[in-house]
Amino acid sequence: MIIDGLQYANWSKRIFQEMRKGGVSAVHATVAYQETFRETVGKLADWNRLLLENGDLICKGRTASDIDEAIATDRTAIFFGSQNPSVMEDDLGLIEPLYDLGLRFMQLSYNGQSLLATGYQEREDPGITGMGREVIAEMNRVGIVIDMSHSAERSTIEAAEISQRPIVLSHANPNTWCPGERNKSDASIEAVLSKGGFLGFSLYPLHLAGGSDCSLEAFCTMVSETAEKFGAAQLGLGSDLCQDRPGSALGWMRDGRWRRGTSPDAFPPQPSWFQSNLDFGKVAQGLTEVGFSLSEVDGIMGKNWYHFFADNFGAQTDAA
Amino acid sequence: MIIDGLQYANWSKRIFQEMRKGGVSAVHATVAYQETFRETVGKLADWNRLLLENGDLICKGRTASDIDEAIATDRTAIFFGSQNPSVMEDDLGLIEPLYDLGLRFMQLSYNGQSLLATGYQEREDPGITGMGREVIAEMNRVGIVIDMSHSAERSTIEAAEISQRPIVLSHANPNTWCPGERNKSDASIEAVLSKGGFLGFSLYPLHLAGGSDCSLEAFCTMVSETAEKFGAAQLGLGSDLCQDRPGSALGWMRDGRWRRGTSPDAFPPQPSWFQSNLDFGKVAQGLTEVGFSLSEVDGIMGKNWYHFFADNFGAQTDAA
Repeated sequence: MIIDGLQYANWSKRIFQEMRKGGVSAVHATVAYQETFRETVGKLADWNRLLLENGDLICKGRTASDIDEAIATDRTAIFFGSQNPSVMEDDLGLIEPLYDLGLRFMQLSYNGQSLLATGYQEREDPGITGMGREVIAEMNRVGIVIDMSHSAERSTIEAAEISQRPIVLSHANPNTWCPGERNKSDASIEAVLSKGGFLGFSLYPLHLAGGSDCSLEAFCTMVSETAEKFGAAQLGLGSDLCQDRPGSALGWMRDGRWRRGTSPDAFPPQPSWFQSNLDFGKVAQGLTEVGFSLSEVDGIMGKNWYHFFADNFGAQTDAA
Repeated sequence: MIIDGLQYANWSKRIFQEMRKGGVSAVHATVAYQETFRETVGKLADWNRLLLENGDLICKGRTASDIDEAIATDRTAIFFGSQNPSVMEDDLGLIEPLYDLGLRFMQLSYNGQSLLATGYQEREDPGITGMGREVIAEMNRVGIVIDMSHSAERSTIEAAEISQRPIVLSHANPNTWCPGERNKSDASIEAVLSKGGFLGFSLYPLHLAGGSDCSLEAFCTMVSETAEKFGAAQLGLGSDLCQDRPGSALGWMRDGRWRRGTSPDAFPPQPSWFQSNLDFGKVAQGLTEVGFSLSEVDGIMGKNWYHFFADNFGAQTDAA
């Protein structure tokens, strides 16, 4: 079972076919970066069309059992998430409708200051705001998972502390391996994992030591070192694959409507060994070669995310 | 000439008649607390109806010359402002349309963290955000005045430093007189006034030493002491009069859509000597009695605001 904890491809039949050929059972797909609630509903409507047109390849993911169904019917389950709380605007009442519409992850900030928390590109990080505390409680109640991948350190740690349910770093690497504010300190990873959370390793070149030239072995060695520190059971992948996106998409992601940005760069080239959904087998092989057991590789490639999905989407039952 | 730097009454013909009887030539009227852009346009449309129905009493204020016109025609000019940047959402491109629609003041935050700055009720104040810097530059260009009345100290001081044009504390008092985060430190007042800015003294009971029981003499003595520290030329009134508003209005102001608030209190009672727009003459008399010259009283009661309006609304000309 292969589960990818984050992608933002320019979705198409070809990509869904690659997911199938690559044996990908589930993907957390970003539906919003700077979108409002209404704009996000539009993106979900676009997804509904994709789901109709590609019903032989993909299905909508709401719970972990949808992954079982996807596997049984040779499809990939698509779970939705937002990289920015702009989707809920300033309205606590929009969180439950977002869950009903299928949202399963929401970052409390993207790169900048949000109404809730601070992104890694701000000069200062005051932690979780008053509104942020309200939103964390409501996300906990409704069962949308808090994602702090792009948030600054203090906000990340405070979110883990304040949240009554596990939170994730869906797509990030340790900054002990690849320095930079966008990757995560050991303190942040510890704060998230010690509360039952999850770390999805990123394959986005800017998060890799050596960038696009990072070797598969170097990546897998980093995963191994992280597993030695924190255990392997709460680790997985969050590739951050932005396949087929034009550079102009970066303009929207970075600048939204709030900054008159410079003309966007192209996306950086992916490492040779991870170009598309066809390449997860290479990562599994690489993990085996750095010494992970088959069971650990199965966990990191997807089973660990499966268990996390099973426990953390939706309202908590008495048993949980 | 009497100019009030902030009111949020439950506007009605009776209140406009009181403005006329009280000799009020201009009022900065709050049109939004937690409103989005679209909701704010709705509030402005409500004002257009009030302006039509009360054209003998009030007129719309766009520039200082509209105050001259109001005086010549025995009316009160109403200038619009927002206490929260929610009106521009996350869209730099909405600032100029807001100016075109008549907005002349915008607070960079209300009580909590905004996308731009921090309100006085947050635990931490990281100062002006990345988006905040973009918005300050755009407000400077367009000529909407930055108001930091409800912002926390660091955000207030940084806004004064970053802004290329004067900013205001439209309705606040020195916290050396009435302690509390909502009032302003001498460092904040100094930062604002040293850059050509403005302080409007509040008559809202919670901003007064002694609250509703504060005496006129105590208030005027505080104004006198502030003038000794900072000079009298950049001082005026911003009464924060919330006449005829039900307590439920406090729920919207404080909680918006982001918090399931407790049932709202009533507004606190105004001091006996400042109940309505009829009472500005008492304040002028009180200022005279604590030793201000007639010319200083004229300035504080309205002429100082007039000069500020004349210099700071709209795009800067070459002469400015």
